[in-house]
Amino acid sequence: MDPIERLSSLFEKFPGIGPRQAQRFVQFLLRNSTSGRRKLIDALENLGGAVHQCPECMRFHAGNKKICNMCTNSERNDSQLAVVASDADLGALERSGTYRGRYFVLGGTISLASEKMSGLRIKELNMRINDLRNRYEKFGEVILAFPANPEGDATEIRLREELEQGFPLLKVTSLGRGLSTGSELEYADPETIKSALEGRR
Amino acid sequence: MDPIERLSSLFEKFPGIGPRQAQRFVQFLLRNSTSGRRKLIDALENLGGAVHQCPECMRFHAGNKKICNMCTNSERNDSQLAVVASDADLGALERSGTYRGRYFVLGGTISLASEKMSGLRIKELNMRINDLRNRYEKFGEVILAFPANPEGDATEIRLREELEQGFPLLKVTSLGRGLSTGSELEYADPETIKSALEGRR
Amino acid sequence: MDPIERLSSLFEKFPGIGPRQAQRFVQFLLRNSTSGRRKLIDALENLGGAVHQCPECMRFHAGNKKICNMCTNSERNDSQLAVVASDADLGALERSGTYRGRYFVLGGTISLASEKMSGLRIKELNMRINDLRNRYEKFGEVILAFPANPEGDATEIRLREELEQGFPLLKVTSLGRGLSTGSELEYADPETIKSALEGRR
Amino acid sequence: MDPIERLSSLFEKFPGIGPRQAQRFVQFLLRNSTSGRRKLIDALENLGGAVHQCPECMRFHAGNKKICNMCTNSERNDSQLAVVASDADLGALERSGTYRGRYFVLGGTISLASEKMSGLRIKELNMRINDLRNRYEKFGEVILAFPANPEGDATEIRLREELEQGFPLLKVTSLGRGLSTGSELEYADPETIKSALEGRR
Repeated sequence: MDPIERLSSLFEKFPGIGPRQAQRFVQFLLRNSTSGRRKLIDALENLGGAVHQCPECMRFHAGNKKICNMCTNSERNDSQLAVVASDADLGALERSGTYRGRYFVLGGTISLASEKMSGLRIKELNMRINDLRNRYEKFGEVILAFPANPEGDATEIRLREELEQGFPLLKVTSLGRGLSTGSELEYADPETIKSALEGRR
Repeated sequence: MDPIERLSSLFEKFPGIGPRQAQRFVQFLLRNSTSGRRKLIDALENLGGAVHQCPECMRFHAGNKKICNMCTNSERNDSQLAVVASDADLGALERSGTYRGRYFVLGGTISLASEKMSGLRIKELNMRINDLRNRYEKFGEVILAFPANPEGDATEIRLREELEQGFPLLKVTSLGRGLSTGSELEYADPETIKSALEGRR
Repeated sequence: MDPIERLSSLFEKFPGIGPRQAQRFVQFLLRNSTSGRRKLIDALENLGGAVHQCPECMRFHAGNKKICNMCTNSERNDSQLAVVASDADLGALERSGTYRGRYFVLGGTISLASEKMSGLRIKELNMRINDLRNRYEKFGEVILAFPANPEGDATEIRLREELEQGFPLLKVTSLGRGLSTGSELEYADPETIKSALEGRR
Repeated sequence: MDPIERLSSLFEKFPGIGPRQAQRFVQFLLRNSTSGRRKLIDALENLGGAVHQCPECMRFHAGNKKICNMCTNSERNDSQLAVVASDADLGALERSGTYRGRYFVLGGTISLASEKMSGLRIKELNMRINDLRNRYEKFGEVILAFPANPEGDATEIRLREELEQGFPLLKVTSLGRGLSTGSELEYADPETIKSALEGRR
């Protein structure tokens, strides 16, 4: 395979990128200067060296220390732990400006094909909860913050079982369902209307 | 204006219909048989005669009596009244299969331009609530079921004020907000995430 | 079926209208005044009486005479006849401001399922061409103006055969193919590029 | 800026990539193995070394020689030169399987803001045409194959002037316009219908 095709085939593996756009990326880089490409290569090389996975929340970060600055931040609320599927979901929760507790990135959701939790950081989650319980007396709630789709639901159900068995005194909650901002009632699905009625306040 | 253009201009006023589709409707009717058009004319004429507006819930219906069969149904839950903006929203709530209480169609939401409630059936709602209170001892909750958009929110706030002043003992609730079925956490807006966190269970 | 459902089911037969939008139409008409609905009924009733199908070009029109004012217009170019599938296609050709010849509406295209021309106005087209030949010495070209899709292509092929057999001296042309306004070369399909290369000027 | 943000900001410059997708790319690479990232870095480094710009057609290629194998291919038709805006457009023309002549990549189209041809390879095109005239007696046509948009049209007009002045005996053609595959006549714009009528065959 020639270098143009090889690079194009690597870009095709990027999330959401098809052959046509992969080729446009290569053309874009070819038209770019040598120093422009060098910057990209340098940034990619730094990614390996300078980025760590935080051993507490499991997210990737570029701090100087192994533990990320969110986990070392003493101003966070030590009573709550939000379990999310991915770094991107952690980012969304954080951007909402509402949640101030601790995080744990599970690394995905259950695949409905296999229904297995292999690949997910279950053991690490148990260790993280034990650690929080030992460190902070007021720690008492795990919030399962998964997407509102079948995979997210299945993960929530399985994890809730696990945690309620392993930590009987812990409060395990899930994100509320209902009308999301901008929804018309007329077009809402029955499941969402049911949640909205149950969750009325 | 010739008959083709006149009919086309009337179809253009239908919700969601532009000039191009209005013209297609006319062409469709021209290609139709005379008896096909006659059926449509008959159905339109019957609409005026056979359809009533229920004096209790204010929705349009085609029952034999003025009061609709939902309002006369003695199996409904007499403790709750859902206030909705439109007949279509009433239909969505009913299709969800969760709600079994009574209904009231307000006839719209507050327009953000005018911020006025004129045009909405406020007086009729007050009479409806008084009537339910007199008739059913267990009546005790009004559920404001408006769309999750600025107009729906404004209507909810204003109506809640009104009702809490006018009926201090009445419980006034609103539909729960949160992730709607199928939403990814990653793409959810901050407002929805905030509601989902607050409404966690 | 009650009057609301009956009208809704008739609107569902309109081109491009599903059950949800059909219901919105009925709600729109219910909220409308009686005189608003009366206007629509009148316009529908006039359609039958005041609209004729022109016996020359076969389009529907609302002129006082049976023959439409495009066919009686002596300023049109009598040397050309454009054969189109529908009144809407005739309208598009006319709006382009380029074509000044005569028209004939075939009433559809060949269905690829049946490959039959039944239902199309083939006999009427032959009569129309004969009539133009008798009336205008300079008449000499039939332009087959069909959509650039498989049905349009099949209709063009079959009609061209018919006309070349029936009228050996007549010039039969079809619309040019190529890049349409706004197309990127990069995303054009091979067939379009081929036409654009063949039709280069 | 930390390495995650730096890489993300470089991906944001890729064509069609916004901040959200740029972040997904970085997360994808973080979850990737070190050897996976190494492959991407290697492919990027090879791009500079192994890819040349062909001095005849100006496209990027990964052949062993400076001149690309399309330009050295003696089976191509030496009578025609297609001038295209980009490598991607060259690829589209080639994939259509219709064109067998020579190519020249102009490097873009005129920007309507500046109306300048600076940045386009005008001088190189003149040299290329001179070279083809000297080498091949039968060379005689330049096909301007630009997108059917205002920029493409402006480039075609300016280039046609240039070439007709500089090479009076040369035939200069442009891609045919008309209905592209799949277009409905009803929705075609007037310009396209005009071209389709003019280009009828």
